[in-house]
Amino acid sequence: MRNLSMMTDMYQLTMMYGYFRHGIGENRAVFDLFYRQAGEEVAYAIAAGLEQAIEYIQNLRFDDNDIAYLRTVCSFADDFLEYLQALRFTGDLYAVPEGTLVFPNEPILKVKAPLIQAQLLETALLNIINHQTLIATKASRVVQAADGDSVLEFGLRRAQGPDAGILGARAAVIGGCDATSNVLAGELYGIPVRGTHAHSWVMSFPSEVDAFRAYAAVFPDDCLLLVDTYDTLRSGVPNAITVFQELKAAGHRPVGIRLDSGDMAYLSRKSREMLDAAGFQDVGICASSDLDEEVIWQLKAQGAQVNVWGVGTRMITSQSMPALGGVYKLVAEEINGQFIPRIKISENPAKVTNPGDKKLYRIYENRTGLAVADLIALVDERYDDPSKPLLLFDPENTWKQMVVTDYSIRPLLKPIFSGGTLVYTSPSIGAIRDYARSELTTLWPEYKRLHKPHYYKVDLSRPLWELKQSMLLQR
Amino acid sequence: MRNLSMMTDMYQLTMMYGYFRHGIGENRAVFDLFYRQAGEEVAYAIAAGLEQAIEYIQNLRFDDNDIAYLRTVCSFADDFLEYLQALRFTGDLYAVPEGTLVFPNEPILKVKAPLIQAQLLETALLNIINHQTLIATKASRVVQAADGDSVLEFGLRRAQGPDAGILGARAAVIGGCDATSNVLAGELYGIPVRGTHAHSWVMSFPSEVDAFRAYAAVFPDDCLLLVDTYDTLRSGVPNAITVFQELKAAGHRPVGIRLDSGDMAYLSRKSREMLDAAGFQDVGICASSDLDEEVIWQLKAQGAQVNVWGVGTRMITSQSMPALGGVYKLVAEEINGQFIPRIKISENPAKVTNPGDKKLYRIYENRTGLAVADLIALVDERYDDPSKPLLLFDPENTWKQMVVTDYSIRPLLKPIFSGGTLVYTSPSIGAIRDYARSELTTLWPEYKRLHKPHYYKVDLSRPLWELKQSMLLQR
Repeated sequence: MRNLSMMTDMYQLTMMYGYFRHGIGENRAVFDLFYRQAGEEVAYAIAAGLEQAIEYIQNLRFDDNDIAYLRTVCSFADDFLEYLQALRFTGDLYAVPEGTLVFPNEPILKVKAPLIQAQLLETALLNIINHQTLIATKASRVVQAADGDSVLEFGLRRAQGPDAGILGARAAVIGGCDATSNVLAGELYGIPVRGTHAHSWVMSFPSEVDAFRAYAAVFPDDCLLLVDTYDTLRSGVPNAITVFQELKAAGHRPVGIRLDSGDMAYLSRKSREMLDAAGFQDVGICASSDLDEEVIWQLKAQGAQVNVWGVGTRMITSQSMPALGGVYKLVAEEINGQFIPRIKISENPAKVTNPGDKKLYRIYENRTGLAVADLIALVDERYDDPSKPLLLFDPENTWKQMVVTDYSIRPLLKPIFSGGTLVYTSPSIGAIRDYARSELTTLWPEYKRLHKPHYYKVDLSRPLWELKQSMLLQR
Repeated sequence: MRNLSMMTDMYQLTMMYGYFRHGIGENRAVFDLFYRQAGEEVAYAIAAGLEQAIEYIQNLRFDDNDIAYLRTVCSFADDFLEYLQALRFTGDLYAVPEGTLVFPNEPILKVKAPLIQAQLLETALLNIINHQTLIATKASRVVQAADGDSVLEFGLRRAQGPDAGILGARAAVIGGCDATSNVLAGELYGIPVRGTHAHSWVMSFPSEVDAFRAYAAVFPDDCLLLVDTYDTLRSGVPNAITVFQELKAAGHRPVGIRLDSGDMAYLSRKSREMLDAAGFQDVGICASSDLDEEVIWQLKAQGAQVNVWGVGTRMITSQSMPALGGVYKLVAEEINGQFIPRIKISENPAKVTNPGDKKLYRIYENRTGLAVADLIALVDERYDDPSKPLLLFDPENTWKQMVVTDYSIRPLLKPIFSGGTLVYTSPSIGAIRDYARSELTTLWPEYKRLHKPHYYKVDLSRPLWELKQSMLLQR
C-alpha cells in the first residue's frame, strides 16, 4: 500500500512546526470537512473515498528518506523532525459512510485530534474525499439519465493520471455504474470489468467481416462487435448480422453491437431495425463516444435504442465541474481541557463556518420514508425522542419555519477512528453501491432533477444557531 | 515504483487474446499517439509525462496475482496467460522530449512493436501523456498571463486523486510554475516547495497579531503572513505591518503578505500602499483563491499589485478543459515482413488518421529563429538538405502553399526504447522546464494568445498526402 504521508501542503508542516515550537501542538482541535456546492445544477452529493482516507491514516508515518528530505526544505529543528518521525494518528475521526447522500455545508467528516495531527491530515483527506465524492456524484447523475439502462465506466485513458482512473472507476461504481473497462480497478476493488475490441482490431484484418469472424471465433459466447470502423449502416451492422447468423447457426447467442461515432439517436434506431429484421431482437446495442448525463437524456428523449451506455471522459473528469471544492475548517479548540468553538468569518456570508463540535442528523417523514431536511446540532444536544415535535428553521431566513411530527431521525456521522484505533470496517464496493442506490430512493425527485433542482434544507439547531450569531456579533 | 501493468482497458486484453489465438500477435505494428485539440482557445500543447511512461514500460510485467485475477474475468486459456506472464516490452518507442511544443494531429509518440505489446500499452500511455500534457499546457497559459510574476502550484487538495496532485504538480512546473505546495511532489521530483500558514493558524491564537507574532518567532527570516482571516485592510495588513516592524527592529527582513479572498485588484493595491507607507516597499504580495489565466490577466490589467500568484483548483484540474483527448491509432502493420499503411476513416474528415510509419519535423526560418510550420512525412523521406527550397501546403486546402527558403529543419521524435532497451535518459525537471521555456520563445505570439490564437500549420509531405488520398479513394 502506498504511503502518502508526505502528500500534504508545505504550509501544514510549517504550521505544525509552529504549533510544536509554541507548545500547543498537543491541544486537541476539531476540524469539519464539508463542501459548499456540488455544481450549479446539483443539489446533492454522494460521499465517497472514506476507505482510501482510512488507508492513508493507517499508513501515516514519515520514514528516514522523508525526514532527510524535510531537513533540506525548511529550517526545521532536530527535535521537531524526531517528533515527526514518531508521529502516528491518535485522534478520533467521524465520517458518513461511503454512499451516503450529503448536502452543502454539513460536516461529512470530522477530526478531533491533537492540533498537529489534525492539521497534517487536511490536504490528503480533502484530496481523497473531494475526488471520489465528485466522481460518485457525477456518475449518479449519468446513471439517473440512463433511466435503468446499464452504464459502464470507460474513462481511464482520459483520466487525470493513474489514480484518477483507478479511484475514479471505484467512485463511478459507488455512483451507480455497473462495471468499468479498467482492469486494475477491477482487480483492486472487485468491480466487474467489461471490454470487447477497438477499431484497431478491425483494421488489423483484411476486411471488417474477417475481423468480426476472427473475434467471434475467439469469443463465441461473448461476442459484441464494434460496427463503426468503416460505415456503420452500410458495412458495420450488415457484417455483424452476417457473423451473428453464423454464430447462431453454430449454437451461440451473440451479445450485441457497439456504436462509437455518428448520430447515436439515428444510428441506434436504424441498427435496431436491421437487427430486429434479421431476427436478433435479443441482441443489445451499446453506445459510447462523448457521453454524459445531458447527452444520454437527450438521446433517450429522441428515441435512441441503446441498452448499455459506455461513458468515458466527461464522467471520469466530471467535465461539467472538475473539482468539488470541499474544505476543512477548524471549528473548536481545546484550551485548558475545554473545547472552545471557533468561527471563520468571511465577507461572503455563505463562507462563514458553523462553529463548535457538532453532529449531523437526517430527518425523515414516516408517512413517505422520504428525507425532509438535515439538521446540524451541537454534539451535546439530544435528539433521541422523535415523539417530540421538531422545529426546523432556515438559518438565513429564520422566519421560514416548519414543525415536523411523525418523523424519524438518523445520526449520519459514524465513529471511524477512536483514540487512533480503527473502529470501522469498510463495506464491499457492491454493498456501498447498493446503499447509495437506496439512499437516492429517500430523496424527493425535486432534488434529483438534472437541471434546476430544488435545494435541500440543511438547518442548524437553535443552540448552534444562537452560538453562531453570538460569535458573529462578538467578533 | 508502482506496477501499472494491469492499468489497461479490458478490451486491450480481449484483443490481445484474439491476436494470440489467430497467431498474429507477433506481427509488428505502428501506433501514433496524437491529440486533436488542446482547447477552443489553445493553439499549442507542451508535451509532458514521458518519464512516467518510461517507468510504466520498464515495470511492465504481470505477476501471479494479476494472472490469477485475469483467469477469473474472462475465458483466457492457460497458454495465453503463460504468454502474458512472460511478456516484456521488446519494441521501439519514439517520442518528443518532455517540454516540447506540440500541435494537433501530429505524432508526439510512436510505438513500433509486436501488435500484442503495442495494443497493451495504449491505455496507460494515453492516461499518462494526456494528463501531464494537459496540465503543463494549462500551466504555461497561467504563467504567460502572470507575465514574469512568479506562479506557484497550490492545487493538491482539489486534484482528482493523489496522482493528479503529484504528477499534476510535476507537469505544472514543466509548464513554467516556480514551485508547488505539494511536499511529496517536491520529494519525488526535486521541485521547490513553498508554504506558510493557513487561516486555522490565525484562529488557533487569541488574536490575529498574536498569531502573526507566533509565526514570526518561528520563521523570522521567512515570514509571509496570511492577512484575510478577519478583515484584510482593517486588521490583517495593519497587524502584519506591526509584526514586520518588530522583525525589522530585530534585524530580520519580512517576506510578504498573502491575500486569499475579496477583490484582489482593490485589496492588493491598498495593501501595497499601506506596506509602502510603512517603509516595506521590498515586501511582496502573494495572491491565491480561484485564480487562472483569465483572472490573472484581468487583475493585472486592473493594476493588481501582486508579485506571486498561488494557483490551485483551476490549474490542477485544467478546469476550462479537463481532458486532452489524445488518441492512439494504428497506422501501419507488418504483413510478410513489410509495413502496410493503415487508415481510420471517419465521417468527420478531421478524424481521418494519417497513415504509415512517419517522422515529425519542425521548420524554423533562419532570419528570426521562429517556427514556421511542422511537417509530417513518411519515415523514408529525406529532409537533410535545408539548402533546397521546401514547398509546404495545407493538407485540407492544397492551394494554400508556401515555399520556404533559408530555413532549418529539426526532427522532433527521439528514440526512447530500441528493441525493448531504454536508450534515453530523462532530463531533470529543471532542465525540462528550461527547455519548455526556450521552446515557447520559438513561437510567434499569434499562437500564444489566450483568446482566439492563430492556428499553427501542421502540414503533410507530398508523398504522405498522396498516400492518404489514394487510401481514401480506394476504400
